[in-house]
Amino acid sequence: MSGHKSKFSVTILGSNSALPANGRNPTSQLLNVNNHYYLIDCGEGTQMQLRRFGVKMQRIKAVFISHMHGDHYFGLVGLLNSLHLLGRKMPLEIYAPESLQEIVRLQLDASGGRLQYPIQFHILKAPQSGSEIIYSDSELSVSAFRLKHRIPCCGFLFSERDKQRIYDTKRGGVAGIKIEEIPTLKKGHDVLREDGTLIRSEDYTIAPQKSRTYAYCTDTVPLDSTIDIVRGVECLYHEATFLEAEKARSKQTFHSTTGQAASIARSAGVGKLLIGHYSARYTELENHLIESRSVFENTDLTIEGKEFEII
Amino acid sequence: MSGHKSKFSVTILGSNSALPANGRNPTSQLLNVNNHYYLIDCGEGTQMQLRRFGVKMQRIKAVFISHMHGDHYFGLVGLLNSLHLLGRKMPLEIYAPESLQEIVRLQLDASGGRLQYPIQFHILKAPQSGSEIIYSDSELSVSAFRLKHRIPCCGFLFSERDKQRIYDTKRGGVAGIKIEEIPTLKKGHDVLREDGTLIRSEDYTIAPQKSRTYAYCTDTVPLDSTIDIVRGVECLYHEATFLEAEKARSKQTFHSTTGQAASIARSAGVGKLLIGHYSARYTELENHLIESRSVFENTDLTIEGKEFEII
Repeated sequence: MSGHKSKFSVTILGSNSALPANGRNPTSQLLNVNNHYYLIDCGEGTQMQLRRFGVKMQRIKAVFISHMHGDHYFGLVGLLNSLHLLGRKMPLEIYAPESLQEIVRLQLDASGGRLQYPIQFHILKAPQSGSEIIYSDSELSVSAFRLKHRIPCCGFLFSERDKQRIYDTKRGGVAGIKIEEIPTLKKGHDVLREDGTLIRSEDYTIAPQKSRTYAYCTDTVPLDSTIDIVRGVECLYHEATFLEAEKARSKQTFHSTTGQAASIARSAGVGKLLIGHYSARYTELENHLIESRSVFENTDLTIEGKEFEII
Repeated sequence: MSGHKSKFSVTILGSNSALPANGRNPTSQLLNVNNHYYLIDCGEGTQMQLRRFGVKMQRIKAVFISHMHGDHYFGLVGLLNSLHLLGRKMPLEIYAPESLQEIVRLQLDASGGRLQYPIQFHILKAPQSGSEIIYSDSELSVSAFRLKHRIPCCGFLFSERDKQRIYDTKRGGVAGIKIEEIPTLKKGHDVLREDGTLIRSEDYTIAPQKSRTYAYCTDTVPLDSTIDIVRGVECLYHEATFLEAEKARSKQTFHSTTGQAASIARSAGVGKLLIGHYSARYTELENHLIESRSVFENTDLTIEGKEFEII
């Protein structure tokens, strides 16, 4: 058990690379932050996977598309259409490369109808260096950073928002803390009453849980710049399309191997590594796990339907 | 057993209407004519269904898209991409409404690559009345006709090409028929030799099997004009999105009910009726079968993975 009361988990919807094969689907993941849902990439069949795993699709607030290879977005327009048919009214935020906007528009136009809900399209562009906040709401902030693939590609950092301190009802009650003083104390500020009494935040509140971060890196060659950006995150997803034996092929296609993903995890001192985006050539994934664990022990395979609690 | 030596079958890849649900996928069917493959519509997930049912995708020569609602084409670009990744060189013919061309082009452009094989795109437009041949090769001819839906929509007639008569080796051998005379006799023509001998085709050949036709009608309201066009076909697929109880809803959404599909089959005197394009509201399909059979006995449900031999 995580010891965290609030939910912060990622469910794997698709784990394969470009060619759906061996019963594995193209890339998509669902991030659950306190029952607010965020979709990361949306390969073909994502809506079927959401149904298969019993995910309440209408809870998705925002979609983040890493890059314009089809195995990362071909399922998006079908999902948009189904959300409409299921009666959605709530806006949907989409963060994606600019060219996706016209692709979606043309397909909606061709169907002769309009969606019943608004789409808020935000053009995604990775900063030259470092990471840049692109989204935030009450639960989550999201930063984008640059990866290196055959076409422009973004990685994402998903971080819980800074939390307030937790008010200690018992001690506060005994000391006669007034209800209007509590919000200030929870923010970590002291209260100076008109009679001169100083009420210290640290006497009546306890430290909040640490905010957790999930980093998402696909598709990319291994980059030194990633190490700084993902340093110390609780959980890193890094593509490991190929085994070590295919290092040349991996480099040629701008992907990473198991060992390269694991080295980044080790150098960055992350809590846990998830690997995926497996090439269709691998029917079994055991060697991916063995190779990655030989470099970074706390590795898990992304398996479709599996939910990882980020702790 | 069909009594036909040549293969003419349809395999159901997707049987549901707009919203994938109850384990059912959006519309797609694979026609097999003597091991030449033709794809009819291509909803999201079609390529996964082709793999699931062990279909050799590279054999697909042509794709026919009935109309521009996403549940009939959202799987196409993913399939095109996978054919490329699997090394296709052979051209692919696509018959589809004009707007699909730009949608496909934009998505291929966004991925930064080129397909290794040529796509021959043919703009599909239904004739005002009757049917019109749009495609033919050595095995098959395809005609398009007009359906009536919320947006322009085509039905298709898939007919085996007229077959040659079968040469009777034994009788021909005894009579000393020359090898260069055989092609003429197989076409049903007699041969007049220079010495005045008349070699009659019917003496040395036997009648070919009857050419079979498969008619495909979705999405549409029931149309009287369909009856004439599909009269006497061996097998008719007609959408039956709704049960009779939902006739009003069916009309409003430009679809057909089980009873309407079955009435067309009966009036047209077809051999067999297949129904499908089921609304997501139906978890079980037994009532579709009961209702349709009460009007037209030889009805079958389209079930994904099932192959129907057309006889």
